[in-house]
Amino acid sequence: MSASNGTWDSERPLGVAVLGMGNVGTEVVRILRDHADDLRARVGAPLVLRGVAVRDVSKDRGIPAELLTTDAEALVARDDVDLVVEVVGGINPARGLILSALNAGKSVVSANKALLADYTGELAAAAEANRADLYFEAAVAGAIPVVRPLIQSLSGDRVNKVIGIVNGTTNFILSAMDETGADYGDTLAEATRLGYAEADPTADVEGFDAAAKAAILASLAFHTRVTAADVYREGISKITSEDLETASALGATVKLLAICERVPAGPGEPTAAEGGKERVSVRVYPALIPRKHPLASVNGAFNAVVVEAENAGRLMFYGQGAGGAPTASAVLGDLVMAARNKFYGGRAPGESVYAELPIAPIGDTLARYHVNLQVADRPGVLAAVAGEFAQHGVSISTVRQQGHGEGARLVVVTHEATESALADTVAALAEMDSVTHVTSVLRLEGTEE
Amino acid sequence: MSASNGTWDSERPLGVAVLGMGNVGTEVVRILRDHADDLRARVGAPLVLRGVAVRDVSKDRGIPAELLTTDAEALVARDDVDLVVEVVGGINPARGLILSALNAGKSVVSANKALLADYTGELAAAAEANRADLYFEAAVAGAIPVVRPLIQSLSGDRVNKVIGIVNGTTNFILSAMDETGADYGDTLAEATRLGYAEADPTADVEGFDAAAKAAILASLAFHTRVTAADVYREGISKITSEDLETASALGATVKLLAICERVPAGPGEPTAAEGGKERVSVRVYPALIPRKHPLASVNGAFNAVVVEAENAGRLMFYGQGAGGAPTASAVLGDLVMAARNKFYGGRAPGESVYAELPIAPIGDTLARYHVNLQVADRPGVLAAVAGEFAQHGVSISTVRQQGHGEGARLVVVTHEATESALADTVAALAEMDSVTHVTSVLRLEGTEE
Repeated sequence: MSASNGTWDSERPLGVAVLGMGNVGTEVVRILRDHADDLRARVGAPLVLRGVAVRDVSKDRGIPAELLTTDAEALVARDDVDLVVEVVGGINPARGLILSALNAGKSVVSANKALLADYTGELAAAAEANRADLYFEAAVAGAIPVVRPLIQSLSGDRVNKVIGIVNGTTNFILSAMDETGADYGDTLAEATRLGYAEADPTADVEGFDAAAKAAILASLAFHTRVTAADVYREGISKITSEDLETASALGATVKLLAICERVPAGPGEPTAAEGGKERVSVRVYPALIPRKHPLASVNGAFNAVVVEAENAGRLMFYGQGAGGAPTASAVLGDLVMAARNKFYGGRAPGESVYAELPIAPIGDTLARYHVNLQVADRPGVLAAVAGEFAQHGVSISTVRQQGHGEGARLVVVTHEATESALADTVAALAEMDSVTHVTSVLRLEGTEE
Repeated sequence: MSASNGTWDSERPLGVAVLGMGNVGTEVVRILRDHADDLRARVGAPLVLRGVAVRDVSKDRGIPAELLTTDAEALVARDDVDLVVEVVGGINPARGLILSALNAGKSVVSANKALLADYTGELAAAAEANRADLYFEAAVAGAIPVVRPLIQSLSGDRVNKVIGIVNGTTNFILSAMDETGADYGDTLAEATRLGYAEADPTADVEGFDAAAKAAILASLAFHTRVTAADVYREGISKITSEDLETASALGATVKLLAICERVPAGPGEPTAAEGGKERVSVRVYPALIPRKHPLASVNGAFNAVVVEAENAGRLMFYGQGAGGAPTASAVLGDLVMAARNKFYGGRAPGESVYAELPIAPIGDTLARYHVNLQVADRPGVLAAVAGEFAQHGVSISTVRQQGHGEGARLVVVTHEATESALADTVAALAEMDSVTHVTSVLRLEGTEE
């Protein structure tokens, strides 16, 4: 490969700064050093590691001590740094460091979903203004190429829905609960012991991590800026072993799903056909899905994303959604492309938010529901409960009575209804004398297809 | 979106020529016209269809007659054509038309696997010399993004193996044979009737189509030029309903697989560790795979590609591998990227063949085998057969005797052995008095993982 196409001399190295040396940073540094020859051949010029910003330089990290620094800002500012890899996570100081890099015309590769979910607009504007690249394949679903396919491969198509399992921790827990019948608390403890859950698991189990990724996916899929605050979010901490048993009895399992979907204009608004705008619904919640659905067999720490597009039809992307080496693979792919752009004079596609679709409130979203009620075992209960659903406009698909006496239960599966109609129904059910307890409400996905 | 980054004025349209108006071309033209506003927003400037080259201009194709021409060369040469979509297929005249376009600095999007399998070197050199782009996502696996992930997303990783179902016709036939128990001939006739097989099905059923795609995948995965002639190829026309029954009894099914794999240096050659080179093995053949393998549940006309990389681990890409609209989705994605590059001054990654790994002959390739023999039902047959395997260095995993008398059969499953050792074994078995007939030899994939 020659330098015939660029202003870059093929002997002049491209300097790389890595911010953060956790699981991902460590693997990025290893690959940069171990595969230098391959990377050079693929870029056109050598990629040289200029330094790694860490919190503690005294810790032995298996690389020459002179590469380590605590002064990330100074590392980013070095004249011989052309490309910055941000794998430090969190909003600050990552945000400031990335802006400094972009404002200096340096290209940035980030794996930071929390930051990108909320600040892509600001960061992309800085990249655009300074003719630098901002790449972030690793921010969603680890090694699985899904950001680039959405931005590039599907840029001539119309994406209608993205549905994915994008958090490995919760998928590990739900898969284990499904397999062992253990309850949530014990399974979380086991996941923590095995390193699949962090000491404070809130970001994962309450769906914040998945919501950030959903915001990024929705932004790309619908050419509309979607932030984490736009995402309706429920975690898995209220899922019980009984929910998984119920799911199993229905030939289904429970998964934490990130769902990004085009939905019609709101009631009273002009429709798309009338020149109005469709809306975007983005939500993260645990849901029942049939075992024959392709996402049902995605187990353990694996991730998968299904994209439904007008012309491409249904695509699925599957692989390791987390972990040092898989995430580093995505980072390095971005780094090679950013380096090639420096070398050949190209540019990454910038942010595309021209569609500016409004966000639909969760209450307007349609789903099917599985409602589990503890009821008094007396004549007429079923009729009364069914009447309450009807009164709120929620059509029932099936209803089953299980057990007798104090343990009597009704399991109701509805047709599609809005979240607000369902919420009103549940509130009314909870007030009924004959209903002892609304045990659980779970959405159903992947049915009626 | 503004024109601030390029030399292109955002009001100046980018002219598109489409060569061929079959299933794919028709959909490309439809999307260009129906989604002009979205495409303009995504590119930065309007994409305008300048003309479509067809064989017969008199046929009504639902577009203004003045857009149709039989003179493809003149259409490509028009000053107001900046981008050329080649969906005509075959080597000639596609090759000459693409070269004309590239030599005039026009970017090309092609879905032509046969051409790309053998002429990527020539076409990529023309693109490079004229600062034009050559994109071909649609050449492999229709709508499924697999070319771009291999070229870009995995450019910082080391791919060890690619294994895929990349031909919809054969997958439709094998899925139907598995489901119905019907034989090959009847199922092919049904596939032809339903439009899943062409009148002359040779390119599909004998594996030529899959071999072209395997050559493209292997070239990208291993940064080595691989052409169709380098691919070992067997089709599905000898697969019997008995083979599928046998597979089922083993908890497996039969799929036509394209396998691209790094294999060690040849016997006597220096190993990679000694400074020598690994080799590349590329082959297409029907094989048994366990039903629990992710590729086993890819049915009908769907395609899927599994990529195993050092850091990313195992990735799977799944979707519609053929058809007008899905293939057009991939073409349009490439077209938007090529148009953006014209607008912003970027460039697609060129051909990467720096690794120049040698191709391993099929005889050196390792596989496990399932050998079905009709034998004389007399004492000592099993021992004699087992002895023949041992003599050729092929280790047996299991052997089962089925039936009695003239219908007696031995089913032998081996451990890994080279193709040449297995071929020698089979030749020797065929000579044995006690072996009436070597009924079938099928490889096993996806076991011992």
